Amino acid sequence: MPADLLGRLLRGDRAALARAITLIDRRPLEAAAIDAVLAPHTGRAATVGLTGPPGAGKSTLVGSLLKSAVRRNDRVAVLALDPVSALTRGAVLGDRLRMEHTTADERVFVRSMTADNGAGGLALATPFAIRALDAAGWPWVLIETVGVGQTEFEIVEAATTTVVVLNPGAGDEVQAVKAGLLEMADIFVINKADREGTQATRLDLERTVSQLPPAAWRPPIIETVAAEDRGTDDVWAAIAAHRAHLVQTGAMARRQQRLLRLALRGLVSAQLEARIETTLKSAEFARMIDAVQAGSSDLNQAGAALLAGVLSR
Amino acid sequence: MPADLLGRLLRGDRAALARAITLIDRRPLEAAAIDAVLAPHTGRAATVGLTGPPGAGKSTLVGSLLKSAVRRNDRVAVLALDPVSALTRGAVLGDRLRMEHTTADERVFVRSMTADNGAGGLALATPFAIRALDAAGWPWVLIETVGVGQTEFEIVEAATTTVVVLNPGAGDEVQAVKAGLLEMADIFVINKADREGTQATRLDLERTVSQLPPAAWRPPIIETVAAEDRGTDDVWAAIAAHRAHLVQTGAMARRQQRLLRLALRGLVSAQLEARIETTLKSAEFARMIDAVQAGSSDLNQAGAALLAGVLSR
Repeated sequence: MPADLLGRLLRGDRAALARAITLIDRRPLEAAAIDAVLAPHTGRAATVGLTGPPGAGKSTLVGSLLKSAVRRNDRVAVLALDPVSALTRGAVLGDRLRMEHTTADERVFVRSMTADNGAGGLALATPFAIRALDAAGWPWVLIETVGVGQTEFEIVEAATTTVVVLNPGAGDEVQAVKAGLLEMADIFVINKADREGTQATRLDLERTVSQLPPAAWRPPIIETVAAEDRGTDDVWAAIAAHRAHLVQTGAMARRQQRLLRLALRGLVSAQLEARIETTLKSAEFARMIDAVQAGSSDLNQAGAALLAGVLSR
Repeated sequence: MPADLLGRLLRGDRAALARAITLIDRRPLEAAAIDAVLAPHTGRAATVGLTGPPGAGKSTLVGSLLKSAVRRNDRVAVLALDPVSALTRGAVLGDRLRMEHTTADERVFVRSMTADNGAGGLALATPFAIRALDAAGWPWVLIETVGVGQTEFEIVEAATTTVVVLNPGAGDEVQAVKAGLLEMADIFVINKADREGTQATRLDLERTVSQLPPAAWRPPIIETVAAEDRGTDDVWAAIAAHRAHLVQTGAMARRQQRLLRLALRGLVSAQLEARIETTLKSAEFARMIDAVQAGSSDLNQAGAALLAGVLSR
C-alpha cells in the first residue's frame, strides 16, 4: 500500500480511505505489513456489530440508523460483510451498491467487504478495515452481517457493542438466543415491532435477560420499525449508553482487545493455511494421500505428517 | 469412540452409524484418531454435493431425489449441512428433524451436521462422516448445504459430483455462476422449471457451458419441479452418468482425493487453531496485545510473535 495513500487516509481523504479498504479487502496480509503506520492513530472508534437471522431487517435498520445519526450531525461508517458465496454475490452486491450510492452524505461512509481474498477472508480483512476507519477519524463503525456463519459471529462479537436483531413472534429464535447468543448481545432490537407478537417476544426476551447472572450491564430491549424510521433514535441512545458504560467501568480497553485478537488470529491462521496448502501440494505429500486412498495409511497418520511438514517449513 | 461401535457400524447397524456420526459431529478430532479402523473399508461411495442460492429448493430436490432412488430400490444417505449459526439453529433444525423423521425407510439414511463442535467445524466433521457412511456400505452420499458460506462450498466441491441448483429467471445468479461457480458444476439443475423464464435461463446456461474450454465432460442442464417430483429421475441419470464418466476416465480416484485433502486440511487447521488460542491466552502474549493497544507495537509485529509462539509450542 503506497505511503502517500496512508498519509491522505490519516488526513481524512475519503477516496484514499475507500482505496485503502479495497486493498485490505483484496490483500489483507499486506494490510498487516503496513499496520505500523495506522496503529498510533487507532483506539478511538467504537464498533457496533449487528447480527440476527436473515430477513430480520438488518440492512433496513442500518439505513435508518444512518439517517438518525445524520439528523444529529454524527459521523458513522458502515462495513457491510457480504457472505463469502460467489453464487449469491450478484444479488447481494446489488443491494450494497445501491446503498453505497444513496449515501453521498459526507457524514456517512458505507463499504461492503467481500472477503473473496482467498487468504484469511472477512475475519482477517474486517479488523484491518475497522482500524483504517478508526485511523481516518470515524468515531462510529457499524458492522452489518449479511451471512450468519461462524466468521460473521466472531466479527460481531469482537465489536465493542453487539446488537442482536430479532422479529416479533420469533419463538424459535429467542430459544436459540437463550441457548447460544444471549451472552453476545449487549442490546436486543425487536424490529418490525408493529407486527403481532411483539409483546410476547419482549416478555420472552425479558425473562431470558432476567435469568442472566447479575451484571453491571443488562441488555436493553428496543422496539423498532426501521422501515418507518421508528425507534432507531432509541437504538442509538442504547448504543451510546453502552459505550459510556464500557468507558466508565474501564471495560472498553478489554473490549477493543477482542478485535486485536481476532485480527491476530486471522493473520496467523492465513499464514499457517498457506503453509498447509504448500505442504498438501508437495510431491512428497501426494504419496501420503495415495497411501491413505489405498488403505495402507489413514487420515490420522497423514494428519500427523502434514502437521510436522507445516511446523518444519 | 468405542471399538464395538465401529464394529457394528461396519456390519451395517444403523443405530451404530447414527451414534458414530453424532460423535464425529461433536468431536471430529477424535474421529481422526479412529480413522485407521474405517480406512480399509472406504473408497466405494460416490458423494454428490448440492449447492445453490437460498430458496432454490435444494431441500425439496433432495427429498424428491430420495423418493426417486427408493422407487428404484437404490440406497442413499444424506448429510444436511446446517449453517454454523446458533441463531438460526432452531428454525433450520426443525426442518431437518422433520425430514429425518419422515424417512424411516431403511434404504434411506438422513443426518444433519451441525458443526458446533468448536474445533474444525463442518470442513473437518463432514469428510469423516462421509467416510463413516462409506465404510458402513452406503453407495451414494448426498451432501446438502443450507448455508452458502465458503466452508459449504469447499465441501460441495470436494464431492465426486457437484450439482448446482438454480431457478428460472435467475439472471444475477447465472452471472455469478459464470464468474465463479462454473468450474465447480458437474450438473446444473433448473428447479421450479414450471415457472416463467426457464427457457431463458437454460439458454443462458447453455451459452455459458459452451464457452468452457473443451473437456470430456460437459455439464448437462436438467429441468426439475422437485415439489411435484418432476425431473428428478433425470437428475439421478445425470449423476450416474457422471459417476460412470469419472470411473471410465480414471478421474474418480483424483476426485476422491479432494475429500481426503479437505479432511487433512481441516484436521491440521484445527490443531493449529488450538495452538493459536493457547498462545493468544498466555500471559506473555497479553503483554504483546497491551503494547499493540498502546500503539508501541503493531499487528504485524504481534502477528510475527504469535506465529513464532505457535511454531515453537
